[in-house]
Amino acid sequence: MPIQVFTNTNADAFIYNEASGMTKPERYRSAKSDVYGYVSELLAKASSQGALDTEMTSDDKERLLAFLKDWGQLDKTSLRYTDGGNRGFSEYPAAAGTPGIPLGPVPGLSEVFASGVGRYFSFEFGFDQAMLMFQPVGGMDRIPAALTAAIGTDKIRLGCQATKITELPEGVTVEYTDAHGRARTIGADYLIAAMPPHLLAKLPHNLGPSVQTGLEAITPASASKIGLEYKSRWWETDYRIYGGITETDLDLTHVWHPSYDFHGERGVLIGYYNYGANADMYGKMTPAEREGRAITLGEKIYGPKYRTEFASSFSQSWRYIPHLEGAWHNIPDGGPDAPVLKPLAYPTGKTYFAGDWLSYLDAWQHGAITSARSAVTQLHKRQLSLNASGS
Amino acid sequence: MPIQVFTNTNADAFIYNEASGMTKPERYRSAKSDVYGYVSELLAKASSQGALDTEMTSDDKERLLAFLKDWGQLDKTSLRYTDGGNRGFSEYPAAAGTPGIPLGPVPGLSEVFASGVGRYFSFEFGFDQAMLMFQPVGGMDRIPAALTAAIGTDKIRLGCQATKITELPEGVTVEYTDAHGRARTIGADYLIAAMPPHLLAKLPHNLGPSVQTGLEAITPASASKIGLEYKSRWWETDYRIYGGITETDLDLTHVWHPSYDFHGERGVLIGYYNYGANADMYGKMTPAEREGRAITLGEKIYGPKYRTEFASSFSQSWRYIPHLEGAWHNIPDGGPDAPVLKPLAYPTGKTYFAGDWLSYLDAWQHGAITSARSAVTQLHKRQLSLNASGS
Repeated sequence: MPIQVFTNTNADAFIYNEASGMTKPERYRSAKSDVYGYVSELLAKASSQGALDTEMTSDDKERLLAFLKDWGQLDKTSLRYTDGGNRGFSEYPAAAGTPGIPLGPVPGLSEVFASGVGRYFSFEFGFDQAMLMFQPVGGMDRIPAALTAAIGTDKIRLGCQATKITELPEGVTVEYTDAHGRARTIGADYLIAAMPPHLLAKLPHNLGPSVQTGLEAITPASASKIGLEYKSRWWETDYRIYGGITETDLDLTHVWHPSYDFHGERGVLIGYYNYGANADMYGKMTPAEREGRAITLGEKIYGPKYRTEFASSFSQSWRYIPHLEGAWHNIPDGGPDAPVLKPLAYPTGKTYFAGDWLSYLDAWQHGAITSARSAVTQLHKRQLSLNASGS
Repeated sequence: MPIQVFTNTNADAFIYNEASGMTKPERYRSAKSDVYGYVSELLAKASSQGALDTEMTSDDKERLLAFLKDWGQLDKTSLRYTDGGNRGFSEYPAAAGTPGIPLGPVPGLSEVFASGVGRYFSFEFGFDQAMLMFQPVGGMDRIPAALTAAIGTDKIRLGCQATKITELPEGVTVEYTDAHGRARTIGADYLIAAMPPHLLAKLPHNLGPSVQTGLEAITPASASKIGLEYKSRWWETDYRIYGGITETDLDLTHVWHPSYDFHGERGVLIGYYNYGANADMYGKMTPAEREGRAITLGEKIYGPKYRTEFASSFSQSWRYIPHLEGAWHNIPDGGPDAPVLKPLAYPTGKTYFAGDWLSYLDAWQHGAITSARSAVTQLHKRQLSLNASGS
């Protein structure tokens, strides 16, 4: 499967926190320069004044100071934060006569912390978010498509809706309605149920109350996205933004730039990617209303081309997709090893369960795949042991 | 020209500072977690104790603390640095029963600062290094190859060595030895000299003493690289390192992982990329000696496969490449606008100069291209003005 690099953070993407008083967007690179600069200045000052002498030896202090001077672009004598170039330029440095024009004066400490730009910085250090990331060429659904091709389409029944699960002494049956609306039953020695747990919980079954309690312990979480197609890639040509997320405290939450087809003719931005109440709010709107709000808010960050170059949109709210009705899950304390989930993670009957919600990486395909591997491994071991005992 | 994403920093690449007492390499992600964690803990403590009350309002302090708790993974009550997962795992989190095994206990503050790992962090914030970066598919020389194709190969004479520059009342002549060793002369109205300045300074010419003084004010800087070809991409399969730089205080300086052909059959690592005295030391070795030292030192970081999977090498030291004799330049204070360089950046005779060394981005093709544009623009304006005056 061909893969390509996928970017989540980008020094040139924007941050725009309107509720925190920002009146214009700021580049990630400028925000990092300012926050890291003032953190360095403050810590250098506290350390020099002896405020941390009980925490550090003089060697520690010397090494810390060397780090802060470099990392925070501190003036070597005053130990004040100065823009050493990391904030960026309104005119780029080039040939003789063109040293570059810095973006503007460094904002004051109070302004920098009030803007809240730093709240987004930890995201890129997260274990499951730190670079380098990939995406399959063509999109994430190329992975299930490849699994389907490997299994064989003749083994997969599409368009079917399960209606009942019954464990019997000799196996399991699932009643379902097929793609033509006919009632059907299928039987097997074992079942691996990979439906969302909150939908499984609504099916009649005889798997017992502890299974039902486990299924009900998981609740669905909301997320919404809109794709905005543009007639040009103005974010690349005008703003030099190639991939990465623009962060905002508007209800859009994230705006995402495409990590593929750079300098192509047209392009698709993710105009919002939001969760919880924001996702539910957009979910309840018509597609036209979603598009209208996404463009009006995005225009605040990116200016007129956000509207004038717009071509079309497609929006989705996972809570409103039949047979999914959720983006990911709220999982009890203890994660997939919470006691209430034990009957699902380690079944003793003939029905196994698999899904991202039975992993430590909910919402990721990695979680779903490792959970599936766990289910088939348990099943395999059980059958080996049955074979060994001659059953 | 097809382009691909190029990575310089990677959470999974290593840092190994032997002289600072590190006994094994550490991942970038772990190093950042620890340094940012202790910086946060120290600053949270100093701020809570009132050490910075003259610097900050109580609102500032509250906002700073909120930032530090999140960014530095501080325990919410003790404000101590704790590993919230950002350091990484020796076994990855997966399905139920597999919560992940953290890398190990968080090292102490003194150990973290003594290791010097933080000295590499500012690199990725530099204006000319911050993500996202691209490379032409096929390598950086696809850019001059594309320029050559656009100009027409018939207009370029290869294999020629200039021997003398003479300005005359009616134009400029350059004497040179052609690819067959024959002495030749070429004349034109103007000359744009794009040779390295320290080599131009050795040519006989009649451009005057201020031009000669300017050329001599630039001295060449050294850099060396070795490409190590491997029979497998063990850094991807064994270490999950996809692109990015491993940093070390060994004389290798940088070890660079390829940002292309991920999961391919074979691959090429840059086994060292170093400057100054280290580059000169490797430059003086035979290719076999360079390869031997690169593998012996790299093995300390990556283990036995660094030797056992090795296939072949190719090394280069720019100081020893005829007609270049340098990687980039030492430029006087003031950069390309230093007074001593004025006769080169803004010539009054018929000879112009172009090169990265006449820009604010020495060593980058961007610098060379903007300098070339400056030279041809000056020439164009001058000729327009001559045309207007009827000369």
